[in-house]
Amino acid sequence: MKVFTKIKDIQEFLSEQKRNGKTIGFVPTMGYLHEGHLSLVKKATAENDLTVMSIFVNPIQFGPNEDFERYPRDFDRDRKLAEDNGVDVLFHPSVEEMYPEESIVQMNVKKRKDVLCGRTRKGHFDGVVTVLTKLFHITMPDRAYFGLKDAQQFAIVQGFVADLNFPIDIIGVETVREEDGLAKSSRNTYLSAQERKEAPEIYQALLKGKKAVENGVDDPAEIVRLVSDHIRQNTGGEIDYVEVLSFPELDPLERIKGKVIIATAVQFASARLIDNVILDLSR
Amino acid sequence: MKVFTKIKDIQEFLSEQKRNGKTIGFVPTMGYLHEGHLSLVKKATAENDLTVMSIFVNPIQFGPNEDFERYPRDFDRDRKLAEDNGVDVLFHPSVEEMYPEESIVQMNVKKRKDVLCGRTRKGHFDGVVTVLTKLFHITMPDRAYFGLKDAQQFAIVQGFVADLNFPIDIIGVETVREEDGLAKSSRNTYLSAQERKEAPEIYQALLKGKKAVENGVDDPAEIVRLVSDHIRQNTGGEIDYVEVLSFPELDPLERIKGKVIIATAVQFASARLIDNVILDLSR
Repeated sequence: MKVFTKIKDIQEFLSEQKRNGKTIGFVPTMGYLHEGHLSLVKKATAENDLTVMSIFVNPIQFGPNEDFERYPRDFDRDRKLAEDNGVDVLFHPSVEEMYPEESIVQMNVKKRKDVLCGRTRKGHFDGVVTVLTKLFHITMPDRAYFGLKDAQQFAIVQGFVADLNFPIDIIGVETVREEDGLAKSSRNTYLSAQERKEAPEIYQALLKGKKAVENGVDDPAEIVRLVSDHIRQNTGGEIDYVEVLSFPELDPLERIKGKVIIATAVQFASARLIDNVILDLSR
Repeated sequence: MKVFTKIKDIQEFLSEQKRNGKTIGFVPTMGYLHEGHLSLVKKATAENDLTVMSIFVNPIQFGPNEDFERYPRDFDRDRKLAEDNGVDVLFHPSVEEMYPEESIVQMNVKKRKDVLCGRTRKGHFDGVVTVLTKLFHITMPDRAYFGLKDAQQFAIVQGFVADLNFPIDIIGVETVREEDGLAKSSRNTYLSAQERKEAPEIYQALLKGKKAVENGVDDPAEIVRLVSDHIRQNTGGEIDYVEVLSFPELDPLERIKGKVIIATAVQFASARLIDNVILDLSR
């Protein structure tokens, strides 16, 4: 596995690979890899000649009161995991390498943002599309892989890549879960033992909502109530939101129909967990 | 010469070319080609395997009171000129193809914009960087060619391409002039016979300013006065601005030093003409 820290070096290397006809699959991460990331790597290695992973905790997608400094990092472990799982090229730049000075252009997300996590994380998705634009230009992938756990991120990425005509297929990969159903996340390490026991109830609540929709409940408010009640009754976490929206447009719904997402964020003492289920009623 | 109107078709074609190791030179234009554009084509054909030209009058870089509808268009003539001058691939999309719906992301220029033409053309460069981002993703060039006549555009393009790490070399090409010194421009066709006679005095004024700087005048205000007086005394045009700035940062200067630009815009009855000279005192 090749490891690069300088933009110029990896661009030169990958340009050469592309000229030689190699296809590139890209898995952007903030490191602290878990099976969720590795499921993206698995898909990327199966579908491309070269798999490129970036590990970069992107400061501009964290708000002032968020956990940028505290976000878990373990590069030596990540490096080994990446290599063992078939990553060919690892990109691990410094903040100074990625943001040497204030940029001439600012990218602002205008749609799909004022719902779910975007409601409280002001500017978060501006930081996400900016770093992805840079990383896409640096790694020049044919395909890029994103977990559907962060469904809003996926919806925005798919949208802005289409709008700006990036020559990249954006591929969404199913959320990987612990045996008890809890969605894998780097932030799970923040949970206390008690919280870790309760956390799988978030997914159970979403499944209860999904089942109700499949059984014909088409009032979004009723689903929100069902899911919220389950979370409140079975965890000590505080609900940030439970929402039912069209997917991937993330528009509110009068009645549930078509492709929809039921999504939630729950705040525990030191960790904010997100999860969702996506269902397609038009099928 | 191949002509494409659909994004998907040209992306597929050029992806295949790149996989086969071909280098791509890109010349973005709004059509109504003149020798200025053809000098960019000449450089592109000399330096790349394939030369791609786009012809697209980009609505989002025109202000509400500007000349989008009136901007001159002659595709049949342009097509022939492009082919005769060695363009291999011509991209000529409709407005609907480029902007099928309101975009999820908005790109805003934050620096190098509130001077020169950017002072009065609010939002102009936002439209320029947006369309170029799309066109760069569509044509995937190794090198892109821009005339130095629009020096502010060149400075902003060079800056945003570096900030967002596009894998593209941005190449500035000297302004092409009529025999009497007038910078070639599609908008010269708007000039009356009398205005056409006076217009070369704009370049004479800039040369007078350049000569004064080379002779040791280092006060920007004095150069602005010299250039403005010459334009006022020799043309019926109204001066929009005469400015002396650092280049390519476009910052105001206390004293003239380093690499600088002397630039002007002059409004005639139906045409606004721009021109500039760039000098490097550090050489």
